[in-house]
Amino acid sequence: DLSWVRPVLCCGHAHTRTLHCLPFSRRAAVVISGTELARQIQREIQRDVEELVAQGNMRPHLGVVLVGEDPASRTYVKNKTRAASILGISSDTVVRPSSVSQEELLELIDKMNRDWRVSGLLVQLPLPEHINERAVCNAIAPEKDVDGFHIVNIGKLCLDQRSMVPATPAAVWEIIKRAGIETVGKNVLVAGRSKNVGMPIAMLLHTDRNHERSGGSDATVTIAHRCTPRGQLKELACLADIIVAAAGVPGLITADMVKEGAAVIDVGINRIQDPKTGKVRLIGDVDFDGVKEKAAFITPVPGGVGPMTVSMLMKNTVAAARNAL
Amino acid sequence: DLSWVRPVLCCGHAHTRTLHCLPFSRRAAVVISGTELARQIQREIQRDVEELVAQGNMRPHLGVVLVGEDPASRTYVKNKTRAASILGISSDTVVRPSSVSQEELLELIDKMNRDWRVSGLLVQLPLPEHINERAVCNAIAPEKDVDGFHIVNIGKLCLDQRSMVPATPAAVWEIIKRAGIETVGKNVLVAGRSKNVGMPIAMLLHTDRNHERSGGSDATVTIAHRCTPRGQLKELACLADIIVAAAGVPGLITADMVKEGAAVIDVGINRIQDPKTGKVRLIGDVDFDGVKEKAAFITPVPGGVGPMTVSMLMKNTVAAARNAL
Repeated sequence: DLSWVRPVLCCGHAHTRTLHCLPFSRRAAVVISGTELARQIQREIQRDVEELVAQGNMRPHLGVVLVGEDPASRTYVKNKTRAASILGISSDTVVRPSSVSQEELLELIDKMNRDWRVSGLLVQLPLPEHINERAVCNAIAPEKDVDGFHIVNIGKLCLDQRSMVPATPAAVWEIIKRAGIETVGKNVLVAGRSKNVGMPIAMLLHTDRNHERSGGSDATVTIAHRCTPRGQLKELACLADIIVAAAGVPGLITADMVKEGAAVIDVGINRIQDPKTGKVRLIGDVDFDGVKEKAAFITPVPGGVGPMTVSMLMKNTVAAARNAL
Repeated sequence: DLSWVRPVLCCGHAHTRTLHCLPFSRRAAVVISGTELARQIQREIQRDVEELVAQGNMRPHLGVVLVGEDPASRTYVKNKTRAASILGISSDTVVRPSSVSQEELLELIDKMNRDWRVSGLLVQLPLPEHINERAVCNAIAPEKDVDGFHIVNIGKLCLDQRSMVPATPAAVWEIIKRAGIETVGKNVLVAGRSKNVGMPIAMLLHTDRNHERSGGSDATVTIAHRCTPRGQLKELACLADIIVAAAGVPGLITADMVKEGAAVIDVGINRIQDPKTGKVRLIGDVDFDGVKEKAAFITPVPGGVGPMTVSMLMKNTVAAARNAL
């Protein structure tokens, strides 16, 4: 049985060094390096940006709105603007105190919507409680909405129309595509139904590949969530050719729930304290060590979906700049 | 084993005569009469309309736009306006030739959007090929869009926000609710991924019951479609507590694919010619005679989902009138 010798077959695209060089035995999964794939995408974005600029167009520009002092939000914003800068995308961050009124925020967004120098625009979430996040997401001009949270972009996503796809679902989709994982007619289990991760992933994966949006995967998709009884989750997971774990539950997916040869994409990012060292570390929703012995493909945490998401945001920013031409 | 004696347990609501009086044996499913449920809903709508009018409000009014001479479209429109009239909803149908330009059509819609006498507005589909249906659907004011096809209403549906839900998914959801079929933590198989039936049904059934929109069903939902291999469809169907057949494939769901005690909702409407009589008759996607021996609940075709849809459209029209107050 040579069905496990997958790496040589895994990819229609140029293989990344990581896919090639990983030590793998007949039984261990290909560990898909999101870090490596992200680098590949970053090189493509860089080329794209330089091409745009060489053609005499404005350099793509990302406008970021940051409200309040939340350290996590500040870190996320810094990562995004740093990534932009490395790729040749200019950016500016407008900071407002957490006491900012919704009205002021909407006015600021309106100003940035009308500013032709801003190609893409995002408001870092979460926002203070007195502000309606939905109203803020819907205030961003859909064509500048690089987070893809505007109601029209969500509607378009669900109708298979071209739209800004939120970064995390786009990252999952890009990983599946670039790793050469087959989707047509395959069973997919998405664990998690959040509106910016699980739901759009289910949308991207079940839809027709022959439509306006590049993509669609023609998979049979099951959406499971906190109300799915454990036994049923296992039963459905065992039928899945692809498992996307996006529930935010550490160790939700264990080896006994995975079909031999399945692809397991771990979107979970859970902070846990190591009982021995006391240090905080990141783990996913998948029991990596157990599952990698059974799966054909697996993404690690950290270093899997995470590093891909910022790249997808940058890709949306360049797309917004192109659309504005 | 008394698990088959379901009718007495089936419903949290007042039982309809049909649910009570249907002759059932220990092995035969409760046949859910959509005709009877529709009558029940019509009585509620009638009461609602009379209440609105008695409070001094305008009578709800449905504006219909009909393009061209297609006899099926004419029949659908006639059924809708007749249903409206019976329920005390006034209506008017604006007819345009199939040569109408998209611009003229959009102007007409704009006029009806701004007309305060029009509570709900629908354009009968399909439209001639030279007209972009999506542009037309998006031109209708979302708050008057009783078909629920506007991109914003689809976005809202997918975000669990209050919105106009398209009539067919709303009918399926109403049947499940009124028949007292449990959904929380149950497995649902939706066969069919069309944008106005399968996709929104999957949305309504998998989402959280504790959100803004009344509804959400907390079921684990699988979306299957034409790319789902037959064997996998059967495997997934056998795990389902509820099967919603919306593929447009006569006889797609057979008894061997149905778990004992499942609920089977047949959304298919297929016109076939009887080989013996030569007459055209309607059949669904479910092999009714076979499946009814195994299922606990089943909807017939005709007389199941079909009669419910016009009622749901009328419900949307009254909701639009209420929202405009």
